[in-house]
Amino acid sequence: MAPTMDTTTPTVDIKEMHEEAHPMKGGDDLNSYSQNSCYQRGVIDAAKIVIIEGVTEKLDLESNLSTFDPSKPFRIADFGCSTGPNTFFAMQNIVDAVAQKYKSLKENVPEFHVFFNDHVNNDFNILFRSLPQNREYFAAGVPGSFYTRVFPKASLHFAHCSYALHWLSKVPMEIQDKNSPAFNKGRIHYTGTEKHAVKAYFGQFQKDMITFLKARAQEIVGGGLMIIQIPGLPSGEVLFSRTGAGMLHFLLGSSLMELVGLGIISEESVDSFNLPQYHPSIEELEMVIEMNNGFTLEKVGALNHPMKNLPFDVQMTSLQVRAVMEGILTDHFGEKILDQLFEIYTKKLQENYNVFDKEIRRDADLFLVLRRKSN
Amino acid sequence: MAPTMDTTTPTVDIKEMHEEAHPMKGGDDLNSYSQNSCYQRGVIDAAKIVIIEGVTEKLDLESNLSTFDPSKPFRIADFGCSTGPNTFFAMQNIVDAVAQKYKSLKENVPEFHVFFNDHVNNDFNILFRSLPQNREYFAAGVPGSFYTRVFPKASLHFAHCSYALHWLSKVPMEIQDKNSPAFNKGRIHYTGTEKHAVKAYFGQFQKDMITFLKARAQEIVGGGLMIIQIPGLPSGEVLFSRTGAGMLHFLLGSSLMELVGLGIISEESVDSFNLPQYHPSIEELEMVIEMNNGFTLEKVGALNHPMKNLPFDVQMTSLQVRAVMEGILTDHFGEKILDQLFEIYTKKLQENYNVFDKEIRRDADLFLVLRRKSN
Ligand SMILES: Nc1ncnc2c1ncn2[C@@H]1O[C@H](CSCC[C@H](N)C(=O)O)[C@@H](O)[C@H]1O
Ligand SMILES: Nc1ncnc2c1ncn2[C@@H]1O[C@H](CSCC[C@H](N)C(=O)O)[C@@H](O)[C@H]1O
Repeated sequence: MAPTMDTTTPTVDIKEMHEEAHPMKGGDDLNSYSQNSCYQRGVIDAAKIVIIEGVTEKLDLESNLSTFDPSKPFRIADFGCSTGPNTFFAMQNIVDAVAQKYKSLKENVPEFHVFFNDHVNNDFNILFRSLPQNREYFAAGVPGSFYTRVFPKASLHFAHCSYALHWLSKVPMEIQDKNSPAFNKGRIHYTGTEKHAVKAYFGQFQKDMITFLKARAQEIVGGGLMIIQIPGLPSGEVLFSRTGAGMLHFLLGSSLMELVGLGIISEESVDSFNLPQYHPSIEELEMVIEMNNGFTLEKVGALNHPMKNLPFDVQMTSLQVRAVMEGILTDHFGEKILDQLFEIYTKKLQENYNVFDKEIRRDADLFLVLRRKSN
Repeated sequence: MAPTMDTTTPTVDIKEMHEEAHPMKGGDDLNSYSQNSCYQRGVIDAAKIVIIEGVTEKLDLESNLSTFDPSKPFRIADFGCSTGPNTFFAMQNIVDAVAQKYKSLKENVPEFHVFFNDHVNNDFNILFRSLPQNREYFAAGVPGSFYTRVFPKASLHFAHCSYALHWLSKVPMEIQDKNSPAFNKGRIHYTGTEKHAVKAYFGQFQKDMITFLKARAQEIVGGGLMIIQIPGLPSGEVLFSRTGAGMLHFLLGSSLMELVGLGIISEESVDSFNLPQYHPSIEELEMVIEMNNGFTLEKVGALNHPMKNLPFDVQMTSLQVRAVMEGILTDHFGEKILDQLFEIYTKKLQENYNVFDKEIRRDADLFLVLRRKSN
């Protein structure tokens, strides 16, 4: 007979809170995220210089060689990695920059352990099957929301999060409450002029970011870096609808309303559909980081996206938006409407070609370099 | 412009060698491994006592508190985890036993980080989605063959491998070579009487085990334990065909030959199909462990499988064999033959009911408790 055991190990708080999860379209076919994420790839490319400078200037290995002992593995995590391939470029950029830093100090280069995090319903099978053959690191997948703890205490040396933190854990309640001044009738997102709706969205963002930072502060070693890219609001701008993402969301909303006009979906169903996203300003980001108090903000700014100067590509943009939104749209409206919806959407993008012109489109892909305080 | 970087980080040897991969049937439907692995579950249950005793007697935390520092994560890996749920029971058993050990020493209990390893084409999506909600550990998936390095140096405190190491990295070449005395005509595995075939199979097993132990010796910290369960040959027996697995394989081979008789598949195709499995004796295991020299063999023996005393269940056994073999059979023969093949197979199991009787069936589920030398 087995001895009886005391199994009351102190429970780590790793339960998923009630939360929405809308992973990008899995697989690797024509409509998949992996085939339609070149905008996000542009972000990764533009962020390469941020990573290199961040590591060179801000990763203080010299005075922390016990924490960053090259005979021990150097652990890196990508939060919200999706199915690749963007995450692989980002991770290689970090590995290269960190290796270079060790070499410049005449230290051995540690072995790298790279952790790919995303929602549990992300397509990890595709991610794993497309891992680069010649990678210079050991790879692991970590399922679970980054709004919870997903790693042991002080186990990461480097965290990365690109184009994921604008996804809120849920749509704020007021937005879907008919009796609230924040009720978002006939739209699927805020444009910036609806004071109450914007406030509700920002409230949710603040809550989520605080949860995120608190979890990461526990997981990252003192002196460890976290580099974040997030679509945000350009400096000095208050209207989300004047950014590329804002316009894309607005037109997706009016495409849905066109389906309402055609009697294909109900107005109700559009009223009760809202995007769980927030695109913050630099000031808003600075505020939440200060509130958390676990990190110093070493650098912040806007990326120079390589596609900024390219002509607007209607077809590609439509496919990209679909790869990102297909999951959340299907959950709410069912699969049937998708083809027609994106036909209308493509048409609308075409009609608004001029609005998307680079002079008018004012995107801001923000980056942050944070350092975990050593306390 | 980005500064140019020296990217010649010393490459870790993590490339997959040319190797076969036959993961268990994914998903969670009626034919899946997750629904048809109760024999393997029995192994896990029987091994619980081995784990508890192994940890209690052989995991020397006291004199290694810097390696097993409870303020740092305690890392456990399951090699060849498949899709669950068996792996979850095994991991919980280990977590409980180790936590208990720390408590008995009046130490804090560390946070646990559990790594689930299997081939890259294993169904990790199902594995992740069925992770226990109330688990007391952080979870990660690790794709890649355990016949390669899959973890950084000295990063694991505990390794586990159940019912996986009998899978060879490939069928030994001689077995499929018409001109070799080991050529395995009309059979799909050895029965034990074909001297040359058995020798070729054992040679491959030896090579693979040495590769496995070498990789694990690098990954496991000095003093860390590795517990292995593997279907083997009962003590004193030389004929594999007298074990349950041996009989099951023999009858699968003759079912295939019946399809040849019916003109459904060619004799050639059966001759060129062989199972990449070896079921070793305790003596053979002792030999390879000694050759490796990185581990001490702390315990070895046969498990007391809870199903040993149950009547033989034809239908369940047929489903189990199918969940395990469907992948490898489909790769070679195509999907079309499966239903008919397993109809014939079930009939044959029925006809041989008496042979499977518990008096005659002489299974041996072996276990090993190894300890990484501290050198
Ligand atoms: N709470 C959360 N936890 C983990 N992943 C999340 C998340 N919220 C959103 N995500 C993930 O964030 C990803 C955004 S897409 C961006 C993917 C990748 N970083 C790239 O740059 O290409 C999606 O895969 C989505 O599932
Ligand atoms: N070289 C290898 N590397 C990793 N996994 C392997 C492997 N060879 C076989 N396996 C895996 O070993 C598993 C055997 S089935 C046993 C699963 C589980 N341990 C249980 O006890 O239920 C399969 O999932 C198979 O894919």
